[in-house]
Parts: sequence; C-alpha cells; structure tokens
Amino acid sequence: MNDIILLAHGSGGVLSHELTRDLFARHFDNSVLDEMGDAAVLETLPPGRLALTTDSYVVQPLFFPGGDIGKLAVCGTVNDLAVAGATPQYLTAGFILEEGLSLETLERVVISMAATARAAGVQIVSGDTKVVNHGAADSLFINTAGVGIVPQELMLSPALLRPGDVILVNGTVGDHGIAVMLQREGLGFGAALESDCAPLNGLIAEVLAAVPSDAVRCMRDATRGGLATVLNEWVGDTTGIEIEETAVPVREDVRAACELLGLDPLYAANEGKVVIAVDPGVAGRVLAVLRAHPLGCNGAIIGQVTASHPGRVILSTPYGARRVVQMLTGAQLPRIC
Amino acid sequence: MNDIILLAHGSGGVLSHELTRDLFARHFDNSVLDEMGDAAVLETLPPGRLALTTDSYVVQPLFFPGGDIGKLAVCGTVNDLAVAGATPQYLTAGFILEEGLSLETLERVVISMAATARAAGVQIVSGDTKVVNHGAADSLFINTAGVGIVPQELMLSPALLRPGDVILVNGTVGDHGIAVMLQREGLGFGAALESDCAPLNGLIAEVLAAVPSDAVRCMRDATRGGLATVLNEWVGDTTGIEIEETAVPVREDVRAACELLGLDPLYAANEGKVVIAVDPGVAGRVLAVLRAHPLGCNGAIIGQVTASHPGRVILSTPYGARRVVQMLTGAQLPRIC
Repeated sequence: MNDIILLAHGSGGVLSHELTRDLFARHFDNSVLDEMGDAAVLETLPPGRLALTTDSYVVQPLFFPGGDIGKLAVCGTVNDLAVAGATPQYLTAGFILEEGLSLETLERVVISMAATARAAGVQIVSGDTKVVNHGAADSLFINTAGVGIVPQELMLSPALLRPGDVILVNGTVGDHGIAVMLQREGLGFGAALESDCAPLNGLIAEVLAAVPSDAVRCMRDATRGGLATVLNEWVGDTTGIEIEETAVPVREDVRAACELLGLDPLYAANEGKVVIAVDPGVAGRVLAVLRAHPLGCNGAIIGQVTASHPGRVILSTPYGARRVVQMLTGAQLPRIC
Repeated sequence: MNDIILLAHGSGGVLSHELTRDLFARHFDNSVLDEMGDAAVLETLPPGRLALTTDSYVVQPLFFPGGDIGKLAVCGTVNDLAVAGATPQYLTAGFILEEGLSLETLERVVISMAATARAAGVQIVSGDTKVVNHGAADSLFINTAGVGIVPQELMLSPALLRPGDVILVNGTVGDHGIAVMLQREGLGFGAALESDCAPLNGLIAEVLAAVPSDAVRCMRDATRGGLATVLNEWVGDTTGIEIEETAVPVREDVRAACELLGLDPLYAANEGKVVIAVDPGVAGRVLAVLRAHPLGCNGAIIGQVTASHPGRVILSTPYGARRVVQMLTGAQLPRIC
C-alpha cells in the first residue's frame, strides 16, 4: 500500500479493494465483512423491535485525551441504540477521506474503532470509503449507523414522564466537550482531563435488568447540547423538570475551565453520559446499580419531573435562587463530535 | 430560519431542532422520524435475514442531468440492498454540511431524497446533521444506511457461479459517469445524456419472482468501477467470465464521449444498472422480465461464466480478438457518487 490516501482509494477499483481487504476487513475482522457484498446479510435477529440510528463524526482534533474520532463513532451509535432500550448488534462504517491523509492515521482510527466495537459487543459488518480531493474535506469524517433489538415489552418515551419521576445521570457532565476544546486550543490547563467517551450499553442493560420494565420512563445520552438540551427536549405541555445545581456532578477542572472560558458545563458535550428518568420507587435501586458500575461510580440523582412549571427546566442554586435553563442557542463548541 | 447553514445548525441546540423539524421531518414525513429519539424504534420486521448496508455520497456537482446527490443517496443504498436479494425497508440519512451552504440548496436535495424514497417504497427514519466550518467540506456530503429483509431461502453469492451461467445487464452502461463528468467539465457535448440514477428494487423483485429462487446466482449494481469491476469481483479460482463487446449496451453519445476523452464505458459508473448472473435455463425468462420493465428495456445478455480461463474476464470483439478486462486501476473519475 502507499502511505497516503489517493483519490484512487475511492475509485472502486484495485486500490479500493486493497484498502478494504488490508485495512478494514483485517481490523474489523468478522465473517460478514469478509463476504464483501454490496450489503451485509445477517443471521435472523432475536425477537423484538428493530432500532435504527445514524451519526456522522467530524470532531477536530481526530485524537484527544480519552479517545479519538473512531472510538467516538462507535460509542456514539452504540449509545444512541442503548438509550432507546436496544441491545446494539451491528454497525456500518462510512469513511470520507481527504486525499493525502496518512494511512497510518487512518489505521490508528480503524484499530480504535475495532477495539471499541469489541468492547461494546457489536460487529462492524458493512462499510464504504469515499475519497475527496485535497481541501474538499478536513482529513477524515466517519458515519456510523447501527441496528439493535428492543424487547417487545419495553416502552421508553419522554411522553411517559409523570410528575414525581426522578432524573439521574451516571457521572460528571461536560468532560468530553471541555477535553476536546482544551486539546484543540492547545491549552495545557486540565492535563488530567479526559473525554468520557465510552460505550454505555453494558451499564444501561444492568439498569434495565434491575427494575420492572415500566419503571424506566426514558433515557438519552447527553451529547451535543449537553445535559441542558436533553432536559429541554423532555419537558412537555404538562411536565417541567427541576434540577438541583449542587446535585449535578461536575469535575473541578471542568468547572474551572468553564469559568475561565465563559462556558456552562450543563451545555458541554458528553460522550459517555446517560440521563435516565425513572419511577420514584426505583430511583434508589437505579442509583445503586449506576454506582456499582465503573462507568457510573459518580452517578447521582439530580432532580425530578414536576407539574408546577410545564415546558420549563428550572435549576435551583444553593442560595435558593432559581433560574430557567434554556435549550442551547448558538454554537457553543463546533465540531465536538 | 436563516437562509444559509450556520455552525449552530450542527450544535444540537435550537437551530438544530428547527432544521430537523422544519426541513427533514417535514419532507421525510413519517411517524417514526416525528418521535425524534436518538434511535428510531420500528415495528417488528417481516421474517427473513437482515441486510444492512451503507454508502457516503460526495458527488460533484450536487445537481446533474437525471439526478442529484439526494436522489443518488437514496437509490444507491436501495440498490445495494436490492442486489443482495433484500426488500429495502428503512433508511437513515446523515448530512455533513459546510457552513454557508444555502438552505435552498439543502431543501432541494432533501425534497429529492423524499421523492425518491417514496418512489422506492422506503422510509427515512433516522438522521443526523453535522456542520463544519467553511472550507472544511465541499458544500454537502450525505451518508445513507439501509436495512432490508432477505427471504430465508434466497442465497446469492459469486461463490455460486458455475460455468455456463448467463450474465445479463438491464441496460446501457456508463450513463451516470459520463453524464456527471460532462456536467462537471461544462461540456455541452451530449446534452440529452442523463444519469441512469434510479431505484432498482422493483425491477429486481420482478426478476426474483419470475424464476426459482436458486436460479439467480448473484447480482450487483455496477457503480464506481463500472461493469468491468463487478465482473472482476465475480471471477474466482475455478470460474472466469466471457463478455461479447457488441452485446454490451452502450449509448452512442456515451461511446462518442468516451472515445473523445480516452475513457472506457466498461469502467464508467452506473447508478441504475444491475448485473445479474443466472442459470442458463432461465436466462431468456429473465431477459423478458427486464425488457418488459421501464428500467430494463435495453436489457441484454452480455456473456457467460466459463471454466476455461479462471480468474479472468475476457472481452471478445467483433473482429474475433479477445482481450483481458482488468479491474479498474487508478481513479478514472473521482467523486462520481
């Protein structure tokens, strides 16, 4: 192989085949991908409803503390399936490469995707590579789509929220957004800070297994737009949400970076954080499950659903003040995922 | 809405939600997308094996005679499922937008995707939008992934090819590649030439319904790399393929453009052409089905599988000469899809 990506790697010809065989199929090693058909044809799925999702990833820089664009592309799609109540099964991977990208960089990303897929228990079964001329893309974009199976009896929707329901999160918020931004801007500040990028399907499966299937109302991973945006997506015509500011876990270095830079950790992106709304009767049990898991050890109850201010998310501060938490307006941190 | 795409349209906040609601959900109108969850949760699928595929689209220009990037993105994924023997069911759509793209352009593309999806009988049920800064992408890239169902008894694979099997194609080759290239280069030549971009699932379903399920060996849509590349992917350790040059349908204007530009129509991309290998006993029946369909009226038997030169594709010319047809090397026409 050449050591950089050429336009011919996207032509469908000899170099495309070599790239597929020597890079993608080698690292995403599985029998389905080896078939190299136009579509992967899979075994019959277990019973249940099909969940289907997609996300593109354009993060800059490609590598950051705690992850890289490949790990992100697998975790993001796995997590979108998991919060829908699905057991993630199969992923596709579509690459858009800029002519001149080093093959070594691409291979690092592919190895990371393969390792993350193994950790999450999913297979990457179908893929595609396009190459655009130098300057027509920023090094490397990835799209992943995923399918999973939702148990027939499990219903999750913000429409199921009732006053009194308890809101939990599995740990500190804002880590991913701030870690990527500090890396991008070359700020040494918070050298120990890493993205929280992680597959949450194992943790979420434990939560769902621990409580009756109608006790979990809805879940969402708080990616772009952060915790504040998820909560704003959940409030409705008859339900509001109240959050205790001091109950929301935020790392000290994230808080300090946010203060310095004029950002709000409630809006900063996460890539390993799930927000869960549950029947109040199981909140303690869910919190215990979260805290017993490596990805939930800083889990917390952060608030509850209320009938008193429908359509609004209200934050209570330790000084007794209350303020409305709006949905994110504008672009806080572009290209964060 | 603003009239151009801003970075904030990809932030996950207010503008992202407006774009999803006012543009994507409006045109891709369906109840699943309206749920706006992280993943679409679908009805239980009909019995059979799951087919899964993905492709990214980076074609330039975005609009060309006979199609546009949106129509291409739906047809390409529908066709990848159909040639795997699947009934296409659901698609995802991931957009990577360049800051400054006009919303009018995006809407034209989305309307085209919606119309093509309706024509193909598939639903676009999950999506994602990322925005990158001006100069970091070339206006608009689309990824589509798709799922479909393959009947339990249908097995299709180049491994099933046997000497004597007949190769057919549903019409003229090279139309898409040459139409896009002439448009891109501003060549008036061949003004009547249009891309063949079309969903082939209806045509392929008719073929499969017309013959016993084991009579079709394999199918492939001849996109990047053209007919020559598909045939080279099919030959194996014990099977070669022989093609009659005069039997391969090529439009006169495509042939003339290729001669002028030093291209070979066998390598030019198609977006509405399926290559089908069948048991010789059903070849006449399959040809009749193709020719009775609007997308197959120029269908033809173009050659057969042979044991006499395993691993090679041989083209016979009208003058009795025979030449080896190699897999595409290099990049004939970049960004053709």
